[in-house]
Amino acid sequence: MSNKVYIAVSLDGYIADKDDSVDWLGMVPATDELTADFPDFMETIDCLVMGKNTFMMVVGLGEWAYEKKVFVVSSSMRSIPSGYEDRAALIKGTPSEIVSSLHDKGYKDLYIDGGKTIQNFLDADLIDEMIISVVPILLGGGKRLFGELKDPKEFQLVETKVLSNMLVQSHYKRK
Amino acid sequence: MSNKVYIAVSLDGYIADKDDSVDWLGMVPATDELTADFPDFMETIDCLVMGKNTFMMVVGLGEWAYEKKVFVVSSSMRSIPSGYEDRAALIKGTPSEIVSSLHDKGYKDLYIDGGKTIQNFLDADLIDEMIISVVPILLGGGKRLFGELKDPKEFQLVETKVLSNMLVQSHYKRK
Repeated sequence: MSNKVYIAVSLDGYIADKDDSVDWLGMVPATDELTADFPDFMETIDCLVMGKNTFMMVVGLGEWAYEKKVFVVSSSMRSIPSGYEDRAALIKGTPSEIVSSLHDKGYKDLYIDGGKTIQNFLDADLIDEMIISVVPILLGGGKRLFGELKDPKEFQLVETKVLSNMLVQSHYKRK
Repeated sequence: MSNKVYIAVSLDGYIADKDDSVDWLGMVPATDELTADFPDFMETIDCLVMGKNTFMMVVGLGEWAYEKKVFVVSSSMRSIPSGYEDRAALIKGTPSEIVSSLHDKGYKDLYIDGGKTIQNFLDADLIDEMIISVVPILLGGGKRLFGELKDPKEFQLVETKVLSNMLVQSHYKRK
């Protein structure tokens, strides 16, 4: 059972630019090795856990990339938007409560997604693996992937590969 | 003629921790491939340009790692500390003035070092190459390598290698 992050980030650590947009990711060419990578990762997880903002952004894009169930972390949303009831469900609580609840439901390997959700899980020391793809651009501002932590956390480098001759994708495990 | 950055950074983008310390770099074992890497880089530059804080930190460490002349960017320092007069000299001005002045003196390839100095040179679009070694630790706070920029800046990935089975060192050129 492990909780995993799989995300692209700018060289200066942002997941969205100053306009809260991810359009800059369009600079990365969709080569075969890149487009094969995400489905390979999805095979390793049982469900997704993402924050409300990330979920609404994905819904707004109109392209559903997930074959696994998505749990949307929110204490304010009353219901999943129409059309997404089969794909997503609401969940709330602390990271530790969310993990327990999903384990009870039989979901073992969780894909933790969205800036704030990742930060909360990291601060609770509930991230076991991170696969981070660094895009060679300095955005100079925006929404940061990592936030403040109570304590430093060491990881172990498992593997690094270059994708599309451009992305540096590193796989880390919690030490 | 090019201006280069060569620096180690935590996975969350810090060059010093919450206590303004670089002790956390001690977690990286000094293997042969790692200790050979810095001298190799030093061969490619003619002098260093570093901010006052970085210079004073290096002086405080008591270990002088540079065989090339160091120019200390400061408008407040009156003189170089005793014992370092042959190794270092003061310089001031905007990044562009500093570059011109050093080119006039015959220094062509400059190693730009120190958080604030790197940020100022980046914002002036005066960084041509960056060799960044990512250490697998989340510090959760401290002094960031990259700061706010007026505009995004794209880089090209030249090479990535793993050092000491731990550091991911990527070499970028300005696009």
